[in-house]
Amino acid sequence: EVGTIQPIREIARLAKEAGAVFHTDAVATTGTIPVDVKELAVDALSLAGNQYYGPKGVGALWLKKGLRIIPFLDGGVQEGGKRAGTENVPAIVGLGKAAELAKAETESRMYRFSALRDRLIEGLLSRIEHMILTGHPTQRLPGNASFCIEFIEGEAMLLLLSSKGVAASSGSACTSRALKASHVLTAMGIPPEIAQGSLLFSFGLENTKEDVDYVLEVLPPIVDRLRQMSPLYAKFLKGQKGGS
Amino acid sequence: EVGTIQPIREIARLAKEAGAVFHTDAVATTGTIPVDVKELAVDALSLAGNQYYGPKGVGALWLKKGLRIIPFLDGGVQEGGKRAGTENVPAIVGLGKAAELAKAETESRMYRFSALRDRLIEGLLSRIEHMILTGHPTQRLPGNASFCIEFIEGEAMLLLLSSKGVAASSGSACTSRALKASHVLTAMGIPPEIAQGSLLFSFGLENTKEDVDYVLEVLPPIVDRLRQMSPLYAKFLKGQKGGS
Repeated sequence: EVGTIQPIREIARLAKEAGAVFHTDAVATTGTIPVDVKELAVDALSLAGNQYYGPKGVGALWLKKGLRIIPFLDGGVQEGGKRAGTENVPAIVGLGKAAELAKAETESRMYRFSALRDRLIEGLLSRIEHMILTGHPTQRLPGNASFCIEFIEGEAMLLLLSSKGVAASSGSACTSRALKASHVLTAMGIPPEIAQGSLLFSFGLENTKEDVDYVLEVLPPIVDRLRQMSPLYAKFLKGQKGGS
Repeated sequence: EVGTIQPIREIARLAKEAGAVFHTDAVATTGTIPVDVKELAVDALSLAGNQYYGPKGVGALWLKKGLRIIPFLDGGVQEGGKRAGTENVPAIVGLGKAAELAKAETESRMYRFSALRDRLIEGLLSRIEHMILTGHPTQRLPGNASFCIEFIEGEAMLLLLSSKGVAASSGSACTSRALKASHVLTAMGIPPEIAQGSLLFSFGLENTKEDVDYVLEVLPPIVDRLRQMSPLYAKFLKGQKGGS
């Protein structure tokens, strides 16, 4: 959600020391940064094809040799008895091809996405007050720029951005429709009223520098407009005046 | 597996009388015979796209209005909270289009498949001795012809049929790799040694009368050849001689 790259290798080591089996969800990282199960020394790793230009509806679970799992979908002998259900062969082939392409292009994608991400982060933070970058400042996914903008609600920003042709998200992609402050952001110590104003941009291969400049142009007036309507912002301004 | 069309409406009525919720797995029937949830009066019905020329990797669960279910895949708000996981939109659209086409063509498909099925059933039963049709003689899926052929093993038949370019299956599609006699056939009272020789043909839109005639030509010699190698058949012949 906030794009921080966790020290998986270190966590895997601690898990192993504690005698635990360690699975990592690498859905957001595969295809964007190098992922090597041997180097990370994890026991299990999952990924999804649609995150790196493969087909939707297909993913993979890598298991360390010898690791046995209890099937979650039971009742058939498919996938060596580990997952019942007719195999989606076309999608599986597509996943493999997308992985091949992603592997060959990882470095160039990283370089490209990081440049766009940094341009967006620097540009927005210098143009909008009371806006914070969430997640790690440098150890973050190349294509992820996540923020909290104080005094406004993420959903309203999404609507106005969308009307300008900009697609972004607010809160976790998995729980955005729950209309609650993201539990990830609140667990990071961000107060719920600030977490409400979360805004996440993800970069894809089709994005350009011009796209970033367009967001830098349209977002500040949107934030201004929403703050004009915000009772929280009015209260804040009043407090500032009262305090001065 | 054996293609028998069960009296779902009647079963649903009995289930309702007993106060039970009734779900029917209509994967093999949707697109092949008319399926109407209102007429069947079921509470829930599942189907899969790849069974009627839609994409693989997508299915649908129809629920009666007001019926609440416990999500099997939890953790996200997708599908109204009933199934977590990024929706495979292209496949869902494909499922809908395939359903539209199947609905428009159900009658012509039924007519076509039934004619091929009956030609195959009559042809094989008249050419091969000690061969029985499994499942209901008339109340069966238009595209399903399932048999047990005594004194031989299904797997060996599949290999030889495959070498002649004919695709068939033996036992349930879901458990065929388990190398056990189908529990469906044994539950129907067919002895395990006969259930081992199960053989299932399914018809698709690409099949023709010539395909059926080809099977009628190649299968009898395959059965002869395998019976020559069969200790069970040798024992049977010996018993017959002894008895005469």
